[in-house]
Amino acid sequence: MKKAEDFSEWYNDIVEKANLTDKRYPVKGMNVWTPYGWKIMRAIDTNIREEFDATSHDEVCFPLLIPEDQFAKEKEHIKGFDTEVFWVTHAGLTPLDVRLLLRPTSETAMYPIFSLWVRSHADLPLKTYQIVNTFRYETKQTRAFIRVREIHFFESHTCHADFEDAERQVREDYEILERLAKRWCIPYKLLKRTDWDKFPGAAYTVGIDTVLPNGRTLQLGSIHQYMDNFSKPYEIKYEGEDGQHRYAHQTTFGMSERLVGAIVAIHGDDKGLVLPPEVATMQAVVIPVLAKGATEAVSQAARELAEEIRQAGIRTHLDERDLRPGAKYYDWELKGVPLRVELGIRDMEKGVVTLVRRDTGEKSLAHRKDAAGAVKDMLDKIAADLLTNAGSIMDASIVTVDSLDDLPDKFIRAGWCGTEECGHRIEDRTERNIIGTPVEGEGFKGMCVVCGKPTTTPVYIARAM
Amino acid sequence: MKKAEDFSEWYNDIVEKANLTDKRYPVKGMNVWTPYGWKIMRAIDTNIREEFDATSHDEVCFPLLIPEDQFAKEKEHIKGFDTEVFWVTHAGLTPLDVRLLLRPTSETAMYPIFSLWVRSHADLPLKTYQIVNTFRYETKQTRAFIRVREIHFFESHTCHADFEDAERQVREDYEILERLAKRWCIPYKLLKRTDWDKFPGAAYTVGIDTVLPNGRTLQLGSIHQYMDNFSKPYEIKYEGEDGQHRYAHQTTFGMSERLVGAIVAIHGDDKGLVLPPEVATMQAVVIPVLAKGATEAVSQAARELAEEIRQAGIRTHLDERDLRPGAKYYDWELKGVPLRVELGIRDMEKGVVTLVRRDTGEKSLAHRKDAAGAVKDMLDKIAADLLTNAGSIMDASIVTVDSLDDLPDKFIRAGWCGTEECGHRIEDRTERNIIGTPVEGEGFKGMCVVCGKPTTTPVYIARAM
Repeated sequence: MKKAEDFSEWYNDIVEKANLTDKRYPVKGMNVWTPYGWKIMRAIDTNIREEFDATSHDEVCFPLLIPEDQFAKEKEHIKGFDTEVFWVTHAGLTPLDVRLLLRPTSETAMYPIFSLWVRSHADLPLKTYQIVNTFRYETKQTRAFIRVREIHFFESHTCHADFEDAERQVREDYEILERLAKRWCIPYKLLKRTDWDKFPGAAYTVGIDTVLPNGRTLQLGSIHQYMDNFSKPYEIKYEGEDGQHRYAHQTTFGMSERLVGAIVAIHGDDKGLVLPPEVATMQAVVIPVLAKGATEAVSQAARELAEEIRQAGIRTHLDERDLRPGAKYYDWELKGVPLRVELGIRDMEKGVVTLVRRDTGEKSLAHRKDAAGAVKDMLDKIAADLLTNAGSIMDASIVTVDSLDDLPDKFIRAGWCGTEECGHRIEDRTERNIIGTPVEGEGFKGMCVVCGKPTTTPVYIARAM
Repeated sequence: MKKAEDFSEWYNDIVEKANLTDKRYPVKGMNVWTPYGWKIMRAIDTNIREEFDATSHDEVCFPLLIPEDQFAKEKEHIKGFDTEVFWVTHAGLTPLDVRLLLRPTSETAMYPIFSLWVRSHADLPLKTYQIVNTFRYETKQTRAFIRVREIHFFESHTCHADFEDAERQVREDYEILERLAKRWCIPYKLLKRTDWDKFPGAAYTVGIDTVLPNGRTLQLGSIHQYMDNFSKPYEIKYEGEDGQHRYAHQTTFGMSERLVGAIVAIHGDDKGLVLPPEVATMQAVVIPVLAKGATEAVSQAARELAEEIRQAGIRTHLDERDLRPGAKYYDWELKGVPLRVELGIRDMEKGVVTLVRRDTGEKSLAHRKDAAGAVKDMLDKIAADLLTNAGSIMDASIVTVDSLDDLPDKFIRAGWCGTEECGHRIEDRTERNIIGTPVEGEGFKGMCVVCGKPTTTPVYIARAM
């Protein structure tokens, strides 16, 4: 299956062949994390924990089940979710007095408790996060990592004294995201959702969107400013230094296992996965190229080489299986190991090792004496190149238009006056969605693609994956 | 509240004061993991991952929801659980065709998939584990970490070619457990459950039991030999080298958040928690003892000291709060930080630091130059002493009797002929449970406490927590 010919088929095929998940579990959209897929997900979780711990967020873990009455307190929120939650109605043989739902997201689990934790200005800001599974009854076609019903999910939830401090948190979230996305070599755009597409209960929603090879956008997560929309119904109030009681302002930041899907989709090629070094279980694989008469010498040298690279802090696998090198190359290319290190008798005689990049296939020689350093440098270069290339591809997929006629299957950018009326017209005429308006100014000058009014706001339009 | 006077009240009190969990969540038995409690739980999870990864187990993550028809395949198993599972009956507004239950444990989620993963002898042994939350509708009184309805849970599941290889796995599990329990300074006994008390579906069950200060036992986990009891209904079959198809033999090993409860209960004292260094978020806390005229010098020296200890790989907190030292001591004693390191102007003049052990309260001086080394040695000593002392207390709580009259509130050991009839008589007469018979021989020689037959098997009898 060729990525360029049928992206969707290619994606399903590569996920299966690389054994990232098992979709044969007998509940639709609930997949099994196999060891290899789970290791990638856990590496991503580790990155997230590092960044959020370093910015004074506390990890917590709230219960899965939410009582219906708690869930119903914020009216917009429940309207947004009531057709897509799973309901627990019985415990053992007993019907429950109050039905419980499986969290689709944790606002309504956390906020009754936040109202107990936040009493005084000294308790603010309250910065928490958790990494849990969430549940949504998706009715659209499911797809591994991208649209599933049990979703591995990260969510941070914060409370602040006022709107300005919550805005500072949103900006900190942008910075955290930038560092994380760089580790994962994922380009993205921050696009503020339209009012009719924001998260139920949010004052505003910023989507984190990337573009897939088929021109569709994939939302990787979102950052929400809630203002006091939730703190009022959930009574999250604090006493200020002046003795006055005020409602907290809140933000959230969420990302899901879609990150695994994005890594597969963006970096993978016709040979299989291409993992960014940061999330690769094995960053380098050492393969002894055995020759008759020198088998033991090469094996021994390969063991020493692997150990040396491992000692330099690089996750290294030594492949000593009794297979011909070509079969090994095939396996590790499919699994996306960023760098292959080959060592044969010729290399040993010359005092070199051969490095083969997974992303470009490029071969180079490194001095045996400095092999570990060369591997490290090459991994850094691979990471930088993956990000640059993916960024260029995303940029190239953005097409600015001044008419909605004959749109290509690209990420469309057009002028918008900002009115709801023209917004709906754009969506109706293109049969695509407005993904949002850029958070960062783009120096745009043009006219609304519907009403012709001059505007400095472009709108991004696409079909979402 | 005194531990020696009312253990049960003391336990609840200390859990609340040290802020390990928040029990105010509006669903009974489903508690919120607060940052401090969750850090301890995650440290335990990290230990578990290290040990299971090092013994070639692969981490996986299976779905939460199990279809009723899959759950019902092993008859004993479903009988054991059907009154204590939570049922999902609706998704959105739609009633489900097949009801889904929240996993109480994952045999019935995993084994339909294991039957796809295990095809040939080359796929064996299959060694997996996962760390997830499980759900049981407990009808008894709930207690933080010890009896809850949403349970943070570790479970390993393995498949083997035959009974002997599964038995080897059970022995490996004993070794893993011994290493883990040593890290947590928890003494335990491996007690084989009676046939009428084994896990539903198991061939035999070995409980991991410890004793609490009130004389009750606390089961920390269990190790099960399933033989082919599950592989037959779930069709986990493989083709042997001889071309014959055989059913796999299976084992499991499970432990839960009760480990946190055990650490609190066993090591804690009237001042608060006493954390084993391995699971302590902060292993050492450095406290500058400020004196008039030398504030900045002491603060600066304390910062350098804390950094030096941190650099030695010890999780170190520097408490620079504007509080008198006594208030700080109180806090860190409550939180169970294993070692306090005080630095005042006198210490500085003498070139020493003061170390204060949390477990014994003992003070000692260390040379400033070798402070990090002294802290490390002292933490090792604290860990060793915690285990030794807890072990002595457990041993002292075991009382061997030759009559069931006037039993003390202890962990009773008595001779048993091994028949079900005498076993039930023991339980009826004592109004306590047979916890089990020791896995390791104890050189016992005596007579059955009911029928008087000579026996070399002692039985352990207690009230379980």
